Amino acid sequence: MRIVLTITYDGTNYCGWQRQKNGLSVQHVLETAIKNLIGNAVTITASGRTDAGVHAEMQVVHFDADTKIPPEKFYLALNQYLPCDIKATSSRVAEEGFHARYSAKRKTYRYAFYASEVTLPLIDRYATRIDGDMPNLKKAQEVLDLFVGTHDFKAFSTTGSKVKTTVRTIYSATAVTDGNKFIIGITGNGFLYNMVRIIAGTVLSFCRGKVTMDEVSSALLTGKRLRAFTTAPAQGLTLESVEYAEYDTANQS
Amino acid sequence: MRIVLTITYDGTNYCGWQRQKNGLSVQHVLETAIKNLIGNAVTITASGRTDAGVHAEMQVVHFDADTKIPPEKFYLALNQYLPCDIKATSSRVAEEGFHARYSAKRKTYRYAFYASEVTLPLIDRYATRIDGDMPNLKKAQEVLDLFVGTHDFKAFSTTGSKVKTTVRTIYSATAVTDGNKFIIGITGNGFLYNMVRIIAGTVLSFCRGKVTMDEVSSALLTGKRLRAFTTAPAQGLTLESVEYAEYDTANQS
Repeated sequence: MRIVLTITYDGTNYCGWQRQKNGLSVQHVLETAIKNLIGNAVTITASGRTDAGVHAEMQVVHFDADTKIPPEKFYLALNQYLPCDIKATSSRVAEEGFHARYSAKRKTYRYAFYASEVTLPLIDRYATRIDGDMPNLKKAQEVLDLFVGTHDFKAFSTTGSKVKTTVRTIYSATAVTDGNKFIIGITGNGFLYNMVRIIAGTVLSFCRGKVTMDEVSSALLTGKRLRAFTTAPAQGLTLESVEYAEYDTANQS
Repeated sequence: MRIVLTITYDGTNYCGWQRQKNGLSVQHVLETAIKNLIGNAVTITASGRTDAGVHAEMQVVHFDADTKIPPEKFYLALNQYLPCDIKATSSRVAEEGFHARYSAKRKTYRYAFYASEVTLPLIDRYATRIDGDMPNLKKAQEVLDLFVGTHDFKAFSTTGSKVKTTVRTIYSATAVTDGNKFIIGITGNGFLYNMVRIIAGTVLSFCRGKVTMDEVSSALLTGKRLRAFTTAPAQGLTLESVEYAEYDTANQS
């Protein structure tokens, strides 16, 4: 039986989603908790990896297991075995052919900055501090609009990852402010390694006058990354939701 | 020279504001940092104590010290010696006769609950999870209105603390919702031990039908605490601001 779980985690204390030799991963903690609950080892597949320090409001995973625990109650039983910074929010039996990664149609990430002269402990855990004024919302939206559509995002990814294609489709990219926070939301059919963090860093660079609209447009055509396309720190990034064609898990909780 | 500092902290890892034999306090960390910065030991006085696990968006403290660091730049120098969960946000020379505790005129606290079947790690650090539906905002406001004004708050405090009087004045008490969060904001001239947490617990009890308006009204007259006046957990409480007559530190940063 294939079970689909939605989970949420604070990535601060983890080396990322994926198991690694050096460091505690979310995957490791989750697989251990499931083993402790059902008695058998399982391998969990996520909709995609998140890096060290990146958070998830909603991540979707699946695993195959034999268990007598009713699938729609599985998440409640599992939470007894999970630490306070990783929790399951729903569970169900997967429909025929469901795969957490390959069946995913859309993912939404948000990246949060906050403008402050000093680190603010009550905000800093889930947002990245920036010096100076708040970025101009209208300016930020102008450059974000360039990313919407189907493009080769090679210039906005960290090289070295093996992918068949660096072409992705962005459905929406918007900026909003909330108090001293400046938040970028991006929905796409998939994201390259570090892509959201590099887009967030580039938007900030643009708002600070360190990169032009032309340079961003060119990079989407040439695939050449400029130095001003900086990678914004992990702590400001949160995976907000993953959507599937048949079954919109964003509406589950 | 008396220096006034505004600070902000995440109380999760501390045994509260005040120095204690067993446990690391915010006061201890701050006094150590100042000693490391200026070379001499100082004793810091805060506007009031916060309990273990309680946060501060703005706490005001003072101390007397000889230093060549310009007072209005002191907070920036100090931040180099502070951990990431305690930071100074402003500093200045105190006006004649200023005392962080005795000169304080108004304090504002907020208490945050969130409604969720499971613990949500990205919210749980600064809010308390509650089961069931969101409390009714209108109902909550009705009972909060009873607290506004000058009353004997003996029934809404933890006994054992030595205070001259249990009479306090509440200037405003309001409830708002923000997504799945339910937030109570209270401004008063001072608060008894656990007073905000007991008021928050009582508001929740009232919204859940476990206590009546009459019982709350009576308790404000008789000083008798009922079992349903529960103390809400520390993690949901944040000291938002402290105001002074001559100098409104809420406008400083």
